[in-house]
Amino acid sequence: MTLSDILNPARITQRISQGDGAAVAAELRVEQPADVAEILMEIPDAAEVEVLRHLSAGDVSRILEFLVREGESALEPLAQLPRETLSTILSRTPLGTAARVLRSLPDTLRADLISTLADRELVETLLAQDRETAGALVTTDFIALRDRMTVGQAREAIRASESLTRQFVQLFVVDAEDRLAGSVTFRQLLLASADSHLSRIMDRNTISVPAGTDQEECARLMERYRLDVLPTVDDNGRLLGFIDLAEVLHVAEGEATEDMYMIVGLNAGESVQTGIRASIRLRMPWLLLNLATAFAAAAVVGLFESTVAKAALLAAFLPIVGGQGGNAIIQTVTIVVRSIALGDLTLRNARRVLMKEIVLGCAHGAALGIIACGAAYVWSGDIRLSVALGIAMTINMLVAGAAGVLIPLILRRFGIDPALAAGIFGTTVTDVIGFGVLLGLAALSISLLGV
Amino acid sequence: MTLSDILNPARITQRISQGDGAAVAAELRVEQPADVAEILMEIPDAAEVEVLRHLSAGDVSRILEFLVREGESALEPLAQLPRETLSTILSRTPLGTAARVLRSLPDTLRADLISTLADRELVETLLAQDRETAGALVTTDFIALRDRMTVGQAREAIRASESLTRQFVQLFVVDAEDRLAGSVTFRQLLLASADSHLSRIMDRNTISVPAGTDQEECARLMERYRLDVLPTVDDNGRLLGFIDLAEVLHVAEGEATEDMYMIVGLNAGESVQTGIRASIRLRMPWLLLNLATAFAAAAVVGLFESTVAKAALLAAFLPIVGGQGGNAIIQTVTIVVRSIALGDLTLRNARRVLMKEIVLGCAHGAALGIIACGAAYVWSGDIRLSVALGIAMTINMLVAGAAGVLIPLILRRFGIDPALAAGIFGTTVTDVIGFGVLLGLAALSISLLGV
Repeated sequence: MTLSDILNPARITQRISQGDGAAVAAELRVEQPADVAEILMEIPDAAEVEVLRHLSAGDVSRILEFLVREGESALEPLAQLPRETLSTILSRTPLGTAARVLRSLPDTLRADLISTLADRELVETLLAQDRETAGALVTTDFIALRDRMTVGQAREAIRASESLTRQFVQLFVVDAEDRLAGSVTFRQLLLASADSHLSRIMDRNTISVPAGTDQEECARLMERYRLDVLPTVDDNGRLLGFIDLAEVLHVAEGEATEDMYMIVGLNAGESVQTGIRASIRLRMPWLLLNLATAFAAAAVVGLFESTVAKAALLAAFLPIVGGQGGNAIIQTVTIVVRSIALGDLTLRNARRVLMKEIVLGCAHGAALGIIACGAAYVWSGDIRLSVALGIAMTINMLVAGAAGVLIPLILRRFGIDPALAAGIFGTTVTDVIGFGVLLGLAALSISLLGV
Repeated sequence: MTLSDILNPARITQRISQGDGAAVAAELRVEQPADVAEILMEIPDAAEVEVLRHLSAGDVSRILEFLVREGESALEPLAQLPRETLSTILSRTPLGTAARVLRSLPDTLRADLISTLADRELVETLLAQDRETAGALVTTDFIALRDRMTVGQAREAIRASESLTRQFVQLFVVDAEDRLAGSVTFRQLLLASADSHLSRIMDRNTISVPAGTDQEECARLMERYRLDVLPTVDDNGRLLGFIDLAEVLHVAEGEATEDMYMIVGLNAGESVQTGIRASIRLRMPWLLLNLATAFAAAAVVGLFESTVAKAALLAAFLPIVGGQGGNAIIQTVTIVVRSIALGDLTLRNARRVLMKEIVLGCAHGAALGIIACGAAYVWSGDIRLSVALGIAMTINMLVAGAAGVLIPLILRRFGIDPALAAGIFGTTVTDVIGFGVLLGLAALSISLLGV
């Protein structure tokens, strides 16, 4: 059997349905846990449960570290494992991950399982954290050293913790009340004499965040200061665990995808792997919203039906005004949404950014308005309608600049994700204004001067 | 003076223009290098040079680690420093960073400076790497241990290298020919006895990449396998250095921004901080391209001017067909571009994704076409034009699904970034097809049955 067979989801599903679950599990357990997690995502839930039943608790625990990243739907099949098995698995899983698994399980099962865990108090603290915060991402797979320890005692503590799978550059030091006191590096422990006290050699300037800190803020902090790990503390300054950069990289990629998708009315949960039915369910609401807003733009054109009947050329100008305004506002919305996500756009500079986009809209609008007016005149020979096109385009580009900044900021003000369908709302604004100005000017000119 | 004064770019610029450069530099040198790099980005080039002149070579070197991330324009002012000063700074800078600085300098200055560096051969190797590859991101600020060393000798080598600023979880082990042989963790070095040989305790299954590996591929690998560092080797398997995750996080965020921007015709270099003139220069070409493509859509409408003159209601239907098709294709383009970036869309599954989007387009198109046809009939009472609208919308959504997958794939086939203006090209396709079908059906119906 070739490697591609072992990792082929369709082949695995088939073999499991033929009762070959134990053999499949035996082959998978020597693969990288990240790869196994991906395969489990791609096979049916029943097959996933069958594989998990044939793996040891330790193996499942290692796979869970990667499966938790894929969101709650990836974890739901776990509920079908026997309660005992699940309890053993969770007792071997770092608490941060265990909390994320528990969160995805039905309420009664969750309560049941928590009561079997040794560290139930810490798990409950972690479960109480909001999603998308530092507290929900925290890794608890670490040892905290005490500030009263000597270097020799610290080395012993590390030796005793050899079961820990993850390793970091720093080790964190806590005081007698479990509060974060500082950090030491492995290099320091390697080079210092065995009888020096950690409190003397540790770095006390350790950057940490409260558990409630937004995960995007954590990503920014870690990227900016090149932190490999970010300790997370509870309200009393006690060390809960820490966030590692690999987790944050995953979060940052997810957030970027989310923003890109939301602007155009896609659900962040969708990917090219999503099934057709699920894709229809996810996209249809936004397409319907877009249809409703398109009728709003159509209604504006409808108001001027008699004008269009007199000067049908106007119909040809509509896609020019609409297309240009739509592209301009999507540009501004994209730049504003991404700047908010990367922390470049704050309340402090929002007014300056708004002014800039308005000035840009005027400049672009005037330049493109003149070009469009000239091109339309060459094409049609109708100077009045061509001028109306130029003016409509200029005004529409200005509106695109202003609305492109304001729509995301207004959405955020109301506690809505600034990216959510901002593109759909934005293009409606430019369609309505652009068509209104073009057809209004044309109607005015026709009523004053005749066709 | 408050903290905000010290870090206020406008205030700093003012003080430097008053000849206060030395005092400003003295205040900045105690701040975080990442923060200083950001301020240097925001003040005029002349002020930046003044600050850099008053900092020690070591301070500038630490700031460069962050300044290189901001792209070449951030590094250009360095060329104004005295050649000697620049040479001293670069001799203290890790070679990976030094190579990125050198790349941004004028050719003669670069050649001059390389000749003064001790490790000129390695720098030249790094400079020869393509941008956006592992080789261009590599950190050389590390010590490589030899596989013949004992643990005790390794500890001594680490002690001797205490000047290194970055620390990682692993240390890399090379053989007598400098080829990557494996890795050991600090924990292993801490716990093993001093006389055991590295070759016995090291992990030989170390994942590494050739220097030419695309940076996005590096990011995927590190995220997937939770690697903190990724060793990079040259064509002969010799260890060049490694990539650290913080750098990759920065790259991943940059790539995501680039994709989002490119789809709508924005330059990845633009942000809300970009000046108005630069923004005009960056956006104008894309707005002009969009204008040209909008005229293509207008020309299609123009072909049917006489039809519109007979049934002006058609003008009101144009934004419905165009808006819906445009939104659908932008959705598909976004999902396809992002999937390519995240490695979810490959040649292997491209055909399946294309089929899926076509089926989705049919399903969405049929559903929305029926709704739009019904709504248009209620509004206008014109059954023939309403049916034409429904059919045009159905076909247009199908086209949006197919073209939304094909446009990014075709762009990539020609070696162009799949995101580049895919949105602009995409909406042109849906406008042209949608308008053509709507107006063509209307013209046919009018010529067969009269108005």
